[in-house]
Amino acid sequence: MDSLTASTTAKPTLRVAAFCGSLRKDSWHRGLIRAAEELCEESIPGLRIDHVDISGLPMVNPDLVTDGGEGFPPAVEALRDRVHAADCFLFASPEYNYSVTASLKNALDWASMGEHNCWADRAAAIVCAGGDFGGGRASFHLRQIGVFLDLHFINKPELHVRAFADPPKFDEEGNLIDVETRERLKKVLLSLQAFALRLQPKDD
Amino acid sequence: MDSLTASTTAKPTLRVAAFCGSLRKDSWHRGLIRAAEELCEESIPGLRIDHVDISGLPMVNPDLVTDGGEGFPPAVEALRDRVHAADCFLFASPEYNYSVTASLKNALDWASMGEHNCWADRAAAIVCAGGDFGGGRASFHLRQIGVFLDLHFINKPELHVRAFADPPKFDEEGNLIDVETRERLKKVLLSLQAFALRLQPKDD
Amino acid sequence: MDSLTASTTAKPTLRVAAFCGSLRKDSWHRGLIRAAEELCEESIPGLRIDHVDISGLPMVNPDLVTDGGEGFPPAVEALRDRVHAADCFLFASPEYNYSVTASLKNALDWASMGEHNCWADRAAAIVCAGGDFGGGRASFHLRQIGVFLDLHFINKPELHVRAFADPPKFDEEGNLIDVETRERLKKVLLSLQAFALRLQPKDD
Amino acid sequence: MDSLTASTTAKPTLRVAAFCGSLRKDSWHRGLIRAAEELCEESIPGLRIDHVDISGLPMVNPDLVTDGGEGFPPAVEALRDRVHAADCFLFASPEYNYSVTASLKNALDWASMGEHNCWADRAAAIVCAGGDFGGGRASFHLRQIGVFLDLHFINKPELHVRAFADPPKFDEEGNLIDVETRERLKKVLLSLQAFALRLQPKDD
Repeated sequence: MDSLTASTTAKPTLRVAAFCGSLRKDSWHRGLIRAAEELCEESIPGLRIDHVDISGLPMVNPDLVTDGGEGFPPAVEALRDRVHAADCFLFASPEYNYSVTASLKNALDWASMGEHNCWADRAAAIVCAGGDFGGGRASFHLRQIGVFLDLHFINKPELHVRAFADPPKFDEEGNLIDVETRERLKKVLLSLQAFALRLQPKDD
Repeated sequence: MDSLTASTTAKPTLRVAAFCGSLRKDSWHRGLIRAAEELCEESIPGLRIDHVDISGLPMVNPDLVTDGGEGFPPAVEALRDRVHAADCFLFASPEYNYSVTASLKNALDWASMGEHNCWADRAAAIVCAGGDFGGGRASFHLRQIGVFLDLHFINKPELHVRAFADPPKFDEEGNLIDVETRERLKKVLLSLQAFALRLQPKDD
Repeated sequence: MDSLTASTTAKPTLRVAAFCGSLRKDSWHRGLIRAAEELCEESIPGLRIDHVDISGLPMVNPDLVTDGGEGFPPAVEALRDRVHAADCFLFASPEYNYSVTASLKNALDWASMGEHNCWADRAAAIVCAGGDFGGGRASFHLRQIGVFLDLHFINKPELHVRAFADPPKFDEEGNLIDVETRERLKKVLLSLQAFALRLQPKDD
Repeated sequence: MDSLTASTTAKPTLRVAAFCGSLRKDSWHRGLIRAAEELCEESIPGLRIDHVDISGLPMVNPDLVTDGGEGFPPAVEALRDRVHAADCFLFASPEYNYSVTASLKNALDWASMGEHNCWADRAAAIVCAGGDFGGGRASFHLRQIGVFLDLHFINKPELHVRAFADPPKFDEEGNLIDVETRERLKKVLLSLQAFALRLQPKDD
């Protein structure tokens, strides 16, 4: 085996921690994450989706933090570990009242608290679905939040799925059924992968 | 008693539903609401603060809504009743990661769901405290949220308390102890009262 | 003639100063203002559009202001007089690179400079046309600008015209040709009129 | 000469195109750019500031573009060439009415028009000075604009100079005279340099 092959083989798979901002069982956003999982398995070597369930977290309350700011409730510790271990992030972020959902903001805030901001300095992408703007107003709030979290969002392509426009985009269980949207989602994932790799330290 | 006097006497007191975006026991934002309560009792006739505790709400999940979108969990129903009954709103809104807190967003979303958006068409004011911007970045996200909620925010004065700058603004229990900030808070309340009255229907 | 009738008859027509953020000759936004003029003349008693041409203004430069902050170039003085004389405002605001255009921002800034902010304390509405979001991202920047200008924007209805979606919305000269969009524009104007009247001082 | 030295010697200097959003002769923002020039010459090897004067540009008007969208007025062509040639960008961006200035937006828009968006895919930083927020509200609008321009802004450190707070930050000619702010500006430049290098293609 020559060194080029060795180097290629050694390239680690990037782990994408994925977050669904909706708690609805048949959420379109959960469906977008499922589709992303399938796309990575089928056709994106080197990228793996790791869906992080944020439904069981307590509401952020600094009084719940112990040990001088470093002791978190068990569910929060588990969240923080998975955020910390990820190589980059995928946010499936619905728009509620022109901004991000409380459940997504709650997870974002928990994993940034204390001495160690677990999100810091990694690539991220946002996908959303909704009405007229396809959830796009919320995505700009998430980008502003990301400045303090120190996330590096990809700029292009953006995926704001107009879920009510023909043809149907999701079935009743929230599964993504539109081929064109699936292709656009794949392009988001490829862009995220490329940007995450580009941000990695260069070999000396 | 002539009719002019009668009319003046009959002018109803405006009820301000006040919301604290922090769950921390000694929150500065809870302290701002306490100070607002005192100010109204002491020196603002016709305005009364009604603090609405949002700490016990479940996280928004459309699956918890029954009866075709009109049946809410009991704590949510109680919230919605108090929002609906208010004449205007005061948001004491901390800035977490450059945006509003999850607990405040959660309350905002619950009271807007279903056929009846309980916030609609009333005056509102935002006060906040924080670091370098005094929480101001979050206030602009709240204003964007308010477009869909159909809130009419006062523009001036803005109150973004720089809580770490001398002199001290709050004591350890979150009580507002700075006289100048208290005076600025009073001006916010007077502006809210004037704008709420201005928005009321004119007598024929 | 009794006093009630006199009062009703005397109700002044509201003057809407309208601004087009595009300098393009065949601009859709200029077309939206022309359609607004026609709608007011045809079917909205009490509302009159006054288009203010902002194409000839110099770029804002504080060094051009004389007399201790109160002397402006002639074209700016003319702008300021018309802004000051208006009862409310209509912004036809394109989206360039996800924000407002330079020419619109330039006019907004000129008329706010010095001791006297000419925009202060009046109702306003935004209409826009564009691609996927119909220009909507820019409208939220304009709303933030309006906080400092002390504008009171209507919340509903919003008019973000998706200009590339079927059926055609504008002809080649920028004239609004879509009946449904015209009807939506009329609803914006009626909402602006109602909000401007609501904000007027009550008679004692 | 060993290979390590050769590699170091060959590393090209990064050219930072710098833009001042104020046209005022004694602008603080022009002073920030001058200070950045000095800092690079004195103490930041590999980084060079190239101030691009944007005061002579016409206001954006698509009717001024010829040749099917590729012919621009001479001053615009000159701007576009310098934007295209830069390795990364520094925006000294004042806040006028809670957003960016018209003159800066005008330059941003001109250099993005037509088939070729000259800003695309490069690192950028924002510095600003102002009143209570130090110009910070405008910087978030600039970040949203940057999504479409495909700019990659550094997240940290942010430099929002509170120009009216003691000690004095600028002299009457707009020169930066505060040592601590100068040190903070240097950290912004080092962060921009590091991010621009990190975004460069890796050697195979």
